[in-house]
Amino acid sequence: MPERLLVIGGDAAGMSAASQARRRRPAEELEIIAFERGRFTSYAACGIPYLLGGLVEDAERLVARTPQVFRDRFQIDARTGHEVVEIDTGAGRIRVREVGTGKEYQEAWDQLVVAVGAEPLRPPIPGIDAQGIFGVQTLEDGLAVERALADDPKNAVVVGGGYIGLEMAEAMVMRGLNVTLVEQAPQPMRTLDPEMGALVADALREVGVELRLGETVDAFETRGGRVTGVSTGEGVIPADVVILGLGTRPRSALAREAGIPVGETGGICTDLRMRSQVEGVWAAGDCIETFHRVSRNPVAIALGTHANKQGRIAGINLGGGYATFPGVVGTAVSKICAVEVARTGLNESEATEAGFAFESVTVESTTRAGYYPGAKRMKTKLLAEQGSGRLLGGQIVGLEGAAKRIDVVAACLWNEMTVDEMQGMDLSYAPPFSPVWDPVLITARKAAERVQASRGGR
Amino acid sequence: MPERLLVIGGDAAGMSAASQARRRRPAEELEIIAFERGRFTSYAACGIPYLLGGLVEDAERLVARTPQVFRDRFQIDARTGHEVVEIDTGAGRIRVREVGTGKEYQEAWDQLVVAVGAEPLRPPIPGIDAQGIFGVQTLEDGLAVERALADDPKNAVVVGGGYIGLEMAEAMVMRGLNVTLVEQAPQPMRTLDPEMGALVADALREVGVELRLGETVDAFETRGGRVTGVSTGEGVIPADVVILGLGTRPRSALAREAGIPVGETGGICTDLRMRSQVEGVWAAGDCIETFHRVSRNPVAIALGTHANKQGRIAGINLGGGYATFPGVVGTAVSKICAVEVARTGLNESEATEAGFAFESVTVESTTRAGYYPGAKRMKTKLLAEQGSGRLLGGQIVGLEGAAKRIDVVAACLWNEMTVDEMQGMDLSYAPPFSPVWDPVLITARKAAERVQASRGGR
Repeated sequence: MPERLLVIGGDAAGMSAASQARRRRPAEELEIIAFERGRFTSYAACGIPYLLGGLVEDAERLVARTPQVFRDRFQIDARTGHEVVEIDTGAGRIRVREVGTGKEYQEAWDQLVVAVGAEPLRPPIPGIDAQGIFGVQTLEDGLAVERALADDPKNAVVVGGGYIGLEMAEAMVMRGLNVTLVEQAPQPMRTLDPEMGALVADALREVGVELRLGETVDAFETRGGRVTGVSTGEGVIPADVVILGLGTRPRSALAREAGIPVGETGGICTDLRMRSQVEGVWAAGDCIETFHRVSRNPVAIALGTHANKQGRIAGINLGGGYATFPGVVGTAVSKICAVEVARTGLNESEATEAGFAFESVTVESTTRAGYYPGAKRMKTKLLAEQGSGRLLGGQIVGLEGAAKRIDVVAACLWNEMTVDEMQGMDLSYAPPFSPVWDPVLITARKAAERVQASRGGR
Repeated sequence: MPERLLVIGGDAAGMSAASQARRRRPAEELEIIAFERGRFTSYAACGIPYLLGGLVEDAERLVARTPQVFRDRFQIDARTGHEVVEIDTGAGRIRVREVGTGKEYQEAWDQLVVAVGAEPLRPPIPGIDAQGIFGVQTLEDGLAVERALADDPKNAVVVGGGYIGLEMAEAMVMRGLNVTLVEQAPQPMRTLDPEMGALVADALREVGVELRLGETVDAFETRGGRVTGVSTGEGVIPADVVILGLGTRPRSALAREAGIPVGETGGICTDLRMRSQVEGVWAAGDCIETFHRVSRNPVAIALGTHANKQGRIAGINLGGGYATFPGVVGTAVSKICAVEVARTGLNESEATEAGFAFESVTVESTTRAGYYPGAKRMKTKLLAEQGSGRLLGGQIVGLEGAAKRIDVVAACLWNEMTVDEMQGMDLSYAPPFSPVWDPVLITARKAAERVQASRGGR
């Protein structure tokens, strides 16, 4: 009898785990069944805004591997439309509900991977369950918005100015809707410091998004069960479609109910090899919490790239290999209208919260040598610990060619470099790619000078 | 009486040194005179191909600071058209020749900075001194080519397929000339491994450059002192203009004659603070040799970004501060026609020469998620030491958006990471910027697998 691996969740983390385990152990040795409550497996959730905005022509393009491919090429029994409703860790069994029929059945495991992802936050605002109000987390969520757009709506309101909210705001503009963004904070993109977020606000205004900053949604107005408006302290904004972009949280209720320990972040706790604290149960992806290498705190960050890596690591270990997940430094990137936005490490409020005293420096520069055609504006910010000068975080907002430079900052964070060490690094230079002083290096240099001055001043 | 600093060479290294020294010590304390044999100070030599190609409208745009600016704003006596012809280290004096008049005079120093740059290689091929044959190192060299183009030449031959040669080949195509590239090696861009260089060859052919690879120039044909053709073993290529792109060497004859020690690379030897081995004499920029952090050998690399950093470090130390140059990892980037080309660390032949046994992995990927518009092809190669898995070098060739990613490889090299450590790094991901598995990370992962397999195999 082969050993039996059950995987809950058929997207990035779950299917990476399943595929890796399969690569290392043939079907005679390891039976693998994956349960996905939706219709799709292994799709790029991050691509949904581009699908809706019309940049990606159809949903199939976002699907890396269909259930059929998993069955045929990997001998993985990928069951879509099957929702796992209970985990019984004592008996080593899960209860599964067929979404179409409601019929339930049980399956036993030797090893279990929980990879159920994150869920959009839906605060208990009156009217939030009305038709026309969408969280955007799964590909099916995205297709639901697409169907709503077929009714030719006029007004879209996006509630919350995080990555998904802003990407969706842009998509709705591209689809010809009047778009209003309501955000509680004085700036969108709270993962950036305010002066960097302000540049994102400008980019949104430039394509016609109306920004209602510092406003809170009190209620959704509805008629016949359908949303018609979004009510804030400042009045009612007409809305045919509402997108919730209030962030996500780990979808960990199923695990919690099963007694699988969940951390303060709401994510399932795992060790470095992606084992939960229950023997034989593994977890990976947006439903877990991981280690932040700068703050040294647990964090829950919903991001496809982490999910893929963690799933792969779970799969290697399940397959008899050895691999560990080294944690994250909080890197993220997005394109919002004309601007590219990137961050890594800690921003000012995160650094303060983690207990760091720091210097911060912001530098205006260009993506290419000033005289080279197509040189675009970019702004780079670095935070460094007082005294030690250790790099704590970085942010970049700029036009085309700016944002991917955050990776070099992430690599410096990863290696716990000081800004003084950073400024001497041998980064590439040629006029089409950078001014002779690379923007990241100039910013590191100025941060090092600031740290040195503050040391002298004590 | 103020102390007296003389600077030989008025471009990146020399003027960075002068400006930094001035920032820290006022004119009452430190007199600064800079000697430049050409007409220009502080210009972007790397911009010359773009000036000639027509992407930069005039030479002034390449000049960061004129002699007038140095005099007025920095109280630096920047003397253009003044060539230093002798350094007398015993007497602490230099002999200067006014280029216009031939008149000579002497100046005494308390501190001297030698920053005379590099010179294009001009092997003793018959006819090489004919009119119409140009090395391209200084802005005046560039303007000489520009004047030659005014005569409406038809045929250009570029001899040597390094960065400058290839950038110039493209510029000549943009100016409407028939362009032939003659290169001794089987591929252009010998700083890349052959299979990566082959992609550059394809890009050149695509814009119409005729490649004569594996051919050596025997002689330049001339008529009335002007070049008319380039003779190789395969025949004579008609030429109205010839560009020498055979590389450069440190311009260290002046220092050598003065008894200032020069290393095996031909570059002036300095310590970490940019002091030569003669008391009171400093050196910086393309005329020195520096430390390669991977091969641990001295290297002479002519690159504006190093020159700027080294000059600044010399200036800080001259100004009473403390700064050191940490060496290089051999990072370079260029855009050749449609392709972006980047490298860092050691390529295969360099790694072999340094004594490393290594694994190498090449991965085809895209610059964005495959489904996102504008995703372009890119090829990434990494070298890792056998056994340890230590990263030794990286190369990237790809279309728009590919090359600047080399910086993250450079940062990993800087920190002596293994490819196994690299594969877990938290690099930024969003569909407009990267596939969900970043190309650098995929390559690191495959290199780590290769290293592991080779360990197992022993």
